[in-house]
Amino acid sequence: MKIIILRLGHRPQRDQRITTHVGLTARALGAEGMLLASDDSGIGKSINDITERWGGSFYVSRTKSWKSEINKWKNSGGKVLHLTMYGMNFPDVVGEITTDNLMVVVGAEKVPPEIYELADWNVAVGNQPHSEVAALAVVLDRLQTLHGNEPLKTEFAGGELEIVPARAGKEVKSR
Amino acid sequence: MKIIILRLGHRPQRDQRITTHVGLTARALGAEGMLLASDDSGIGKSINDITERWGGSFYVSRTKSWKSEINKWKNSGGKVLHLTMYGMNFPDVVGEITTDNLMVVVGAEKVPPEIYELADWNVAVGNQPHSEVAALAVVLDRLQTLHGNEPLKTEFAGGELEIVPARAGKEVKSR
Repeated sequence: MKIIILRLGHRPQRDQRITTHVGLTARALGAEGMLLASDDSGIGKSINDITERWGGSFYVSRTKSWKSEINKWKNSGGKVLHLTMYGMNFPDVVGEITTDNLMVVVGAEKVPPEIYELADWNVAVGNQPHSEVAALAVVLDRLQTLHGNEPLKTEFAGGELEIVPARAGKEVKSR
Repeated sequence: MKIIILRLGHRPQRDQRITTHVGLTARALGAEGMLLASDDSGIGKSINDITERWGGSFYVSRTKSWKSEINKWKNSGGKVLHLTMYGMNFPDVVGEITTDNLMVVVGAEKVPPEIYELADWNVAVGNQPHSEVAALAVVLDRLQTLHGNEPLKTEFAGGELEIVPARAGKEVKSR
């Protein structure tokens, strides 16, 4: 399953760290890239720096129109999952989510109401207020595990650094 | 499995939103409470406001000494899991993590080196840099699921508001 993220409603001052966490989580858990509906260029830079050092081919692209990205995705046969605490609880709909090309829409505080209609699934990760970073992580983890991939063992080719997992302490080697 | 969170290294200005996301994720995914090693009172207030409105008994307590909290926990028979990108990859050690009382230590940018020795397990959620919020979410989700609980269906008694899950749009009812 190819997965990309569309990050909406990013406010450059307020959301910088959260959006960075969204992007890094997407990368670490096997998504292909993130479209960012904002002209904030700092996020892309800091995530691309990570990819350069730690490998893989994750990308961040800025877009001026979230709606045309969704329409383009759907027109080419992809499906759209919108994360919202108001949606159907994930365990109750996960069986429906079968597609080879999934766009996960991750909103910040307010999202345009239209998104609820454009999405194929409006999904809550538990119907409680929490974190879009956590919600994204659980969805990426469960969906891929269900389809036989272990997202925590995603391979990141290239890059300069690699961690040697350790029972205690820190070990990093150069590649 | 009773789970509590110990949040370390919180810097009041810089980490406020991330620590709030850590706490809300812990609450939403069934942890009992969060100990915050910082004198920042704003976090506790904003998370307690959520609990008041949305129910359940999640708590936030500030502590002056993270080390005495860990020692107290271990002395009463609990185990300690420290989340770190340098640790053993979660899928490789998850089978070892059997305890009725788990403390999950979630650090911010820098943590005292001693913590690696005090923890029973140093665990990475994939050995890549990403987000402590995402790492916590995956660990809470997988550990509880493995032990037969569905964390996304945690019940939150009391509170004022409840979401009615919807295919599209938002529906909230008062309790």
